[in-house]
Amino acid sequence: MAEVKLFGVWASPFSRRIEMALKLKGVKYEFIEEDLKKKSPLLLKYNPVHKQIPVLVHNGKPIAESLVILEYIDETWEGPAILPKDPYERAQARFWAKFLDEKCIPAMWKACWSTGDEREKAREEVIEILGILDNEIKGKKFFGGDNIGLVDIAGNLIGYWFGIITELAGLEIVTEDKLPNFRKWINEYNNCSFVKENLPPKDKLIVFLKARFEAFNTSK
Amino acid sequence: MAEVKLFGVWASPFSRRIEMALKLKGVKYEFIEEDLKKKSPLLLKYNPVHKQIPVLVHNGKPIAESLVILEYIDETWEGPAILPKDPYERAQARFWAKFLDEKCIPAMWKACWSTGDEREKAREEVIEILGILDNEIKGKKFFGGDNIGLVDIAGNLIGYWFGIITELAGLEIVTEDKLPNFRKWINEYNNCSFVKENLPPKDKLIVFLKARFEAFNTSK
Repeated sequence: MAEVKLFGVWASPFSRRIEMALKLKGVKYEFIEEDLKKKSPLLLKYNPVHKQIPVLVHNGKPIAESLVILEYIDETWEGPAILPKDPYERAQARFWAKFLDEKCIPAMWKACWSTGDEREKAREEVIEILGILDNEIKGKKFFGGDNIGLVDIAGNLIGYWFGIITELAGLEIVTEDKLPNFRKWINEYNNCSFVKENLPPKDKLIVFLKARFEAFNTSK
Repeated sequence: MAEVKLFGVWASPFSRRIEMALKLKGVKYEFIEEDLKKKSPLLLKYNPVHKQIPVLVHNGKPIAESLVILEYIDETWEGPAILPKDPYERAQARFWAKFLDEKCIPAMWKACWSTGDEREKAREEVIEILGILDNEIKGKKFFGGDNIGLVDIAGNLIGYWFGIITELAGLEIVTEDKLPNFRKWINEYNNCSFVKENLPPKDKLIVFLKARFEAFNTSK
């Protein structure tokens, strides 16, 4: 039987992307919790370039970078598809997953972990970026169509973490009168039983993130 | 017959990536040269999110982001493979192409277009990053093995532009006693007839880049 190990962190959306994909395919795996303040020799061995989680190790061979791992999982195991079959739709899914990682998430991070004018500027950028996603998700249940796909899996941070983080950071972004399609997607996402089963418990995550914000606020 | 158009810039390595892939597959296409100081309404229509070249338009449907386009080309047309067949090797190719775009190229850009301490720090980072690539290419003709593949195509900037740019910028990075495997790859790359046919003429590129460096130096 194939041996599948995942080096990750329970509270990391990037790590959870991989768990969600493995669960979708019905792949049994061993989860190895990493301490990012004291990374294990195995993590450093398996991802010497970035020294980051998540790393999937399949039959002793490591794969790093969450979007790369998601494609590997889709190509390796049978089961529900993560990427669409049609090459044009596949390209669109890759485009939006890349957009999340390169534009959306860095802007959100900046808005949450900055102060003053920098924070306000970052907040405005996040709203602009989410406006683009709001337009993209219009009329669809999920980015993947009727079922979750690559962009929805990669979108766990904006679907779940984001609401908790902005609340803790005191950032007002998704208000009642704005981003209606994005808000609808968040709702669908968090009510999807498969998604719910693969997200960290809210109360535990709040405690974890609260501690990080408190440390940030006292260091300001 | 399928209609294939490429919106690009002759001197852009990102644009040339797509031309190289289309030529590899034997796909006929129309090249539309963009003026980045005055982008065409069509480019803005086809890539409203990033407003950047390259954009491939296939039967009226646009695809943006060069790495996404390369995968689309590989999945759409027959001919020599751009990505390997084996899922693990595909993951490795994607990992290194991503590494080029996210780590290598930004560091090189910073080293070339900065001054003083910032420049020196960036230069050291470039050497460190190229050391990682030097190790990866060890014992292989191309990143793709015996033939060029995704990483070699995405690597045109480090294989060709890089030497010209560092010379114009007066940056010493690839010296005689350093990075032997990377230097060997550069040599193989620039002597490969297929690669040569798909790179911009050196003299024309030097004139183009020189003007940019002169503008940068007078604005310092």
